[in-house]
Amino acid sequence: MQIAKFTVGEAGEREVLRRVLAQLSPAEASLVGPGDDCAVIAADGDLVVTTDSMIEGPDFLLRWHSGFELGWKLAAVNLSDVAAMGATPTGLTVALACPKDTQVELLEQIALGLSAACRELAPGCGVVGGDLSTAPVLTATVTAFGSMRGRAPVLRSGAMPDDIVAYVGDLGLAGIGLSRLYAEGHALEELKARSPAALEAQLAPRPPVALGVAAAEAGASAMMDVSDGLSLDAARLASASGVTLDFSSELLQAAFGDQRGQSVTVYEMLTGGEDHGLLATFPADVRLPAGFVVIGAVRDPRADEPVHLDGAPFEPRGWDPFVSAPGAPTR
Amino acid sequence: MQIAKFTVGEAGEREVLRRVLAQLSPAEASLVGPGDDCAVIAADGDLVVTTDSMIEGPDFLLRWHSGFELGWKLAAVNLSDVAAMGATPTGLTVALACPKDTQVELLEQIALGLSAACRELAPGCGVVGGDLSTAPVLTATVTAFGSMRGRAPVLRSGAMPDDIVAYVGDLGLAGIGLSRLYAEGHALEELKARSPAALEAQLAPRPPVALGVAAAEAGASAMMDVSDGLSLDAARLASASGVTLDFSSELLQAAFGDQRGQSVTVYEMLTGGEDHGLLATFPADVRLPAGFVVIGAVRDPRADEPVHLDGAPFEPRGWDPFVSAPGAPTR
Repeated sequence: MQIAKFTVGEAGEREVLRRVLAQLSPAEASLVGPGDDCAVIAADGDLVVTTDSMIEGPDFLLRWHSGFELGWKLAAVNLSDVAAMGATPTGLTVALACPKDTQVELLEQIALGLSAACRELAPGCGVVGGDLSTAPVLTATVTAFGSMRGRAPVLRSGAMPDDIVAYVGDLGLAGIGLSRLYAEGHALEELKARSPAALEAQLAPRPPVALGVAAAEAGASAMMDVSDGLSLDAARLASASGVTLDFSSELLQAAFGDQRGQSVTVYEMLTGGEDHGLLATFPADVRLPAGFVVIGAVRDPRADEPVHLDGAPFEPRGWDPFVSAPGAPTR
Repeated sequence: MQIAKFTVGEAGEREVLRRVLAQLSPAEASLVGPGDDCAVIAADGDLVVTTDSMIEGPDFLLRWHSGFELGWKLAAVNLSDVAAMGATPTGLTVALACPKDTQVELLEQIALGLSAACRELAPGCGVVGGDLSTAPVLTATVTAFGSMRGRAPVLRSGAMPDDIVAYVGDLGLAGIGLSRLYAEGHALEELKARSPAALEAQLAPRPPVALGVAAAEAGASAMMDVSDGLSLDAARLASASGVTLDFSSELLQAAFGDQRGQSVTVYEMLTGGEDHGLLATFPADVRLPAGFVVIGAVRDPRADEPVHLDGAPFEPRGWDPFVSAPGAPTR
């Protein structure tokens, strides 16, 4: 593959677009692809839509993320939100803004990563349109669509007392990866060799996208993508449902204490962030889809105690972009 | 209305979200609104989708744009793209990123502007979901959806020789507004009083969104939103259709030489940018929807001459974000 070695300012919008579009694989549902005022996607049940931005500085650093990994992660985190409704991802739009001296190659690599993640995590889905503009730092916003295909969406609000609490995906790994990067990111290749699972989970997560539909079909009563930390997101699901979620440290430890050779503590599982696994509740008699693991139970609501660990209140902790972002900028 | 006087860093994500969501009016088609992993929108024909970013610096300056105007413009420019397909706008998602010391009030005003533009330009459409994060400068990406409601989309590629070329909307005004702002923006209120039409067109454009469906129903053969300058966008439509568009300076001057008291030259009309009107071609025997004005004719293709003015080649000129952005940043 021939890769451009010049900047977007030298290339101009038309040439940048041509090169970026060449790296994208089409979406199956696409009726009109990039190049018109809008993309057109075949309708197949109610539309599900979500959007997420990643901004150089607070959300990623180019000295850690390759363009390919960044594109992969952009697609993955949005596909995971679509999956969490029990929907099938059908398309993405991508708004990219970057400084004029950005290498065109970086944008091509982002496009390759976007396409690869769609192909591997949500076959049939692809980039249907986008926007290019300039910004002081690399700024990417992906909006993902999915189709309910006649099913009802699985909301956060449906959990019932005595339901089981289940999870599928990496848990705590991405948070460990981020801590390692801040501490030892100056020696990136050595770090990757020493902590491959945590680094992969942080740089190019692999959310279990296909299991969203499987959970919906199995009868999940509530579901969400865990992106800000299991305990913080569980508190949101618990509040929406009017219940308390009680996690079991024994079940968590047994299922997630060792993930691909990386040991993870229960505290890291509950507070890590950027997991992009699926937290779901199911009636107790349901046969869980393969991959989901029971990690707790839904209890009657306790006032101001949305999350318990082993029956005792656990203060929800995780990511708040306006408070926790390391180096979150001020003007 | 009570407006917050504190920063997003002081408020935290949850409180910012609560305040911003309170300013939004719902979309009619919304089945699941903000607060879950995704929004869900009722399907009603094939889905149309477009995305556009506006970034503080290259795309707007807060010393010129109020929060309300910025929100309005964000909605308007995306609604215009939906209209240009002949679709009915049904929803927007909004990804906002800002420095931690941004006033919560600014985000509330942006939300008010988004809602007002939807209400006035595309009744029934509204914000269905979004994302909040941090960035070194205010960064907003809107993705807009529309429904084809059983119609076929009007593409850029359908213009035929002998079709008429028509336009509806402001033309050249927004470009004049931008030039005035760069020259005299230090005295904003005086400038607004002296050049109200040009300033309004630049700061809070009013694209003729409803006329997109009207043009489709009347039988438009091709259509597009004019956002980068009439001649540059016309060249794109001409290339997609394999024709040449021939504008008439006499027709342009007669229809757009005076717009709400602002005189506009034919050159300004052809090169201005950010017009967000609709350029459409129609078979010659069509009765144009009210508002559209004939400004030229479609000709047999001339190699390398996509745009003519009065029968002679006119070099397409307009906006390239990587080349023309005034003060477009480098790293």
